[in-house]
Formats: sequence, structure tokens, C-alpha cells
Amino acid sequence: MLLKLDLQSEIPIYTQLRNQIIEGIGRGDLKYGDALPSVRNLASDLGINLHTVNKAYTLLKQDGYIQVHRQKGVVVNPEGMPPIDEDFLNKIKDEFRPIIAECLCRGMSKEEVSLIVKQIYTMIKEKGR
Amino acid sequence: MLLKLDLQSEIPIYTQLRNQIIEGIGRGDLKYGDALPSVRNLASDLGINLHTVNKAYTLLKQDGYIQVHRQKGVVVNPEGMPPIDEDFLNKIKDEFRPIIAECLCRGMSKEEVSLIVKQIYTMIKEKGR
Repeated sequence: MLLKLDLQSEIPIYTQLRNQIIEGIGRGDLKYGDALPSVRNLASDLGINLHTVNKAYTLLKQDGYIQVHRQKGVVVNPEGMPPIDEDFLNKIKDEFRPIIAECLCRGMSKEEVSLIVKQIYTMIKEKGR
Repeated sequence: MLLKLDLQSEIPIYTQLRNQIIEGIGRGDLKYGDALPSVRNLASDLGINLHTVNKAYTLLKQDGYIQVHRQKGVVVNPEGMPPIDEDFLNKIKDEFRPIIAECLCRGMSKEEVSLIVKQIYTMIKEKGR
């Protein structure tokens, strides 16, 4: 899986890294149990700081997307992805809400917002093909 | 319009303030040209720092949601809301994308994500009624 970082972006590198790994899993490029590069190797390959990779991995681990073993290294959670529970639904609602409010504010209809969301879903899913 | 801040939230107060004013406009509680409290008054009413209100107003002004006049004070942009241009569409796509990727990763279907988005849209719109 190819990771592309935008060093000019306002989005922190560790967030970009986290997001791309999640997209990779979502798209199926990364399968449950797949090995990810060590912190050291990934930092070296991407030419970024160890702490940046470490921060991305820590977030992914906290959310249950990956496991970090001292011996086996870093792997996509072999037990599968974390569930769609109430905590997760509340979290995504909190995240979606201000974006949707801006759309509403500028006069976008519910259907228009929903269409954009569906397009993004498809784009993430098919990007790898 | 009633502003409710969650001081325990991880979301910065200025972001909460900004988001709620945008929701107020989106819902129609705040109309184009409506006066908003001065920085000083709002900070005093909410018991928060002047700089926090100032930061929220600065963001809203930058995005074209409000105007800040030395004499007329703070008003919802009387010329209407900023347009749904390519910049805005790119911005919301960038914001939507990581949330949708997480949904995909956890196995939510396109329809399920779209339904949640529609529910939030309706909730924002009808909250004031």
C-alpha cells in the first residue's frame, strides 16, 4: 500500500498517516492480521520523525484498528475491526455535525449532502482498483 | 438563540461557539443581518475568555458567515451566506473523508452512512422547533 503525505497540508502528518491506514483497511488493501512497517522503518521510508509515526500508531491502536506487539511487530487487528457501537456512532455524529451544519447554512439540500457522502464512500472504496 | 457550551468536551470552546452559530444560521434562528452580541458581552454572558469569543468570531468572519463592524457591531452576513464553490466542496470532502473511511472500515454500508448523515441534517434543522 502506497502512503502519500502532503507536507504542505494543514492536517498534521500523524493524522494523515492514521487516516490513510484506516482507508487502506476500509478498502481492503490492508487485511486483518497484515503486517505494517515498524515505527522506525516507516519513519525512515517516509522521511518523517519517529514520534510522528508513533503518534499515528498509538491512535490506531487506541481505537482498535491495529495491534502493536513487541515481538510480532505492528499488525492490522487480526480479530477484525472495532464494532459499530453507541460510542462510535456518537463520535461520528459529533464529527459529521459541524460539517453538515455548514452545508445547511450555505443552502445545500439534504439530498445534496447525502450524495456527496455517498460519492466519497465510493471513492475511498474504489481508489485502489 | 441559546448557546450551550460543554466545558468538559475535548472540542475547544471557540470551535463549539463557531459551530453553534453556524447551526443557528442553518436552522434559521439567526437571520441574515441579525445582530450578535459583542465579544465583550458574549464572553461575559457565557463566563468565558474574551479571546475565546474573538477567535470564534474571527473564524466565522474569515469564512464569510458574519461581519464585524467597528460601529454596527457583529452581524450575520446581511448579503447572505458564502457560496457552495469548489473551495468549499473540497474543504467538506476533506473533512468528511476520514469519518467515512472509519465507517467503511467498521463495515457500515454506503446506505447506512448516508442515513446517519440525513438524520443529522434533519436534527440540526428541526432542533429549534
